[in-house]
Amino acid sequence: MDEFSFIRSIRPDSYKQSTLIRGIDDDAAVFRAMQEDVVTAVDTMVEGVHFSKETMSPADVGYRALAANLSDLAAMGSRPAFYLVSLVVPDHWSEKELDELYRGMNQLADEYQMDLIGGDTVSGQDLCVSVTVVGYVGQGLARYRSASKPGDLVFVTGSLGDSRAGLQCIFDEREETEDVRYLVNRHRRPSPRVTFAEMLRSCERIALNDVSDGIANEANEIAEASGVDVIIRQERIPCSGAIQALYPDQYLEWGLSGGEDFELLGTVSKEEWSCVEKAANESGLKVTVIGKVEERKKDHPYVYIQKEDKRNILEKTGYTHMKRG
Amino acid sequence: MDEFSFIRSIRPDSYKQSTLIRGIDDDAAVFRAMQEDVVTAVDTMVEGVHFSKETMSPADVGYRALAANLSDLAAMGSRPAFYLVSLVVPDHWSEKELDELYRGMNQLADEYQMDLIGGDTVSGQDLCVSVTVVGYVGQGLARYRSASKPGDLVFVTGSLGDSRAGLQCIFDEREETEDVRYLVNRHRRPSPRVTFAEMLRSCERIALNDVSDGIANEANEIAEASGVDVIIRQERIPCSGAIQALYPDQYLEWGLSGGEDFELLGTVSKEEWSCVEKAANESGLKVTVIGKVEERKKDHPYVYIQKEDKRNILEKTGYTHMKRG
Repeated sequence: MDEFSFIRSIRPDSYKQSTLIRGIDDDAAVFRAMQEDVVTAVDTMVEGVHFSKETMSPADVGYRALAANLSDLAAMGSRPAFYLVSLVVPDHWSEKELDELYRGMNQLADEYQMDLIGGDTVSGQDLCVSVTVVGYVGQGLARYRSASKPGDLVFVTGSLGDSRAGLQCIFDEREETEDVRYLVNRHRRPSPRVTFAEMLRSCERIALNDVSDGIANEANEIAEASGVDVIIRQERIPCSGAIQALYPDQYLEWGLSGGEDFELLGTVSKEEWSCVEKAANESGLKVTVIGKVEERKKDHPYVYIQKEDKRNILEKTGYTHMKRG
Repeated sequence: MDEFSFIRSIRPDSYKQSTLIRGIDDDAAVFRAMQEDVVTAVDTMVEGVHFSKETMSPADVGYRALAANLSDLAAMGSRPAFYLVSLVVPDHWSEKELDELYRGMNQLADEYQMDLIGGDTVSGQDLCVSVTVVGYVGQGLARYRSASKPGDLVFVTGSLGDSRAGLQCIFDEREETEDVRYLVNRHRRPSPRVTFAEMLRSCERIALNDVSDGIANEANEIAEASGVDVIIRQERIPCSGAIQALYPDQYLEWGLSGGEDFELLGTVSKEEWSCVEKAANESGLKVTVIGKVEERKKDHPYVYIQKEDKRNILEKTGYTHMKRG
């Protein structure tokens, strides 16, 4: 695999985004943001860390690498437009497998009319897929973690812990039932909540964060960025029937700290909750109110997990300990 | 090294670019292109492929990774603004070394007032540094490889082959003379020609390509993109005194195919040559006319290397063979 061949070989014949001026045929790509803000993020997947050939097919790897990035764009309320791919390719990956990886990525890119506008391919020991995405959002309309205010409702899309449970199904070599298929698919082919996030456009103020490391982590990021306390009701955590049936002892823990579900965690005022509900209905997505935002009570913002009347501090890792002070 | 710590730890206290709206504190960065086009590229360096701890210090690796990207922006005539860094970190790299890597990158970023606006850090077997850069260029003013026309002069900045020779000095463990220091520095700390390229602003038409793989390759890219023949005069290839003194038998080959010098190869009309000379003078850079552009004579565009009156086809690899037909 020389440094030119792969990215060049997958160069699209035509581009879909009208704001693109030059694609992957030059030293760099050129585009023109038409009165919109530009949003960008990078995310990397490494073989042996985020996946192995046992847990994911090459097409899954490609799909999943782009999905993680699209989830970041969704969490900004941004519409995906472009992506750049940097591949480190080891000897044990064939050109055919790379082609499948690209096809998996392309499948998701096509859903959102995204154009591949750059990248490079170099050799190395482990497959690394680093994807940079570029999206657009109306001027001043990006959604931040810091927008949360006391009195807000805390909500989450879809269900939590499924990706972690799906990985466990693969490790456990579980027989392929409908529940297993559902969970494994949630691990290999997560759906970034791009459409839902875009439909929140009319919402005046909303804090969003995507669930890549588990809501314990993401809720803490919102709490810290906004300087508020976040209270999550344990019994409200939305967990699928599949995870509850297959992993009755683990699903709650995985729901809090499992990660990689690529759902959206958000907070919004009660007045604007209807806007969230409407976006959910129109995009065919479930949203669940799981708690509320309160004024910060200590010198530092905290996330609390509440079960009945008892609150414990919920740390970033999902680890809980007794409420301090 | 957990996935959050490093990029977060190097988060800048303040940002320099006025068009930046949100830096690395959210799911993605947000910026607003003020009536300019946006230029973006990605480039990856892998330990054991592009460098080793023997050939480069951690600070050199950081500097060099960003330099390669800035060179791509220069080749588009674009002003650097932002960068995102994806790091794959193996166990044998310490936090101190990572910090030095970042300092090397930061040193170059500071020269151009660039802001670090995103990134991630994951673990893996080899150190991989993948940098995505974002720059601005006046609307419609990006420089393309496809802009070359018959009658143009072909020019190159600086001198060629130095980076390859510098690497050889390291392999050969040469004693540190002034020449050796010069060449080694050209390998470890190449200077992207950003300022020169920006100063070409008043030039109406110019084709540019950066010398990352050797001018044999880059000249072919211009020829193909523009559908023209490019003729390079062998005796005009600018090689430093140092490379000629230390590698009298290799310097010509390395000048053609050595790569990683990050000079700029360009073509411009005779009428606008003065504009290139002026930019070179003002940025303290040497430019050398090394050939000319001619109408394509066959079914395919070719690059020819001419020595006295004899022309040979110069292939992308730098390999030459007898002129066909």
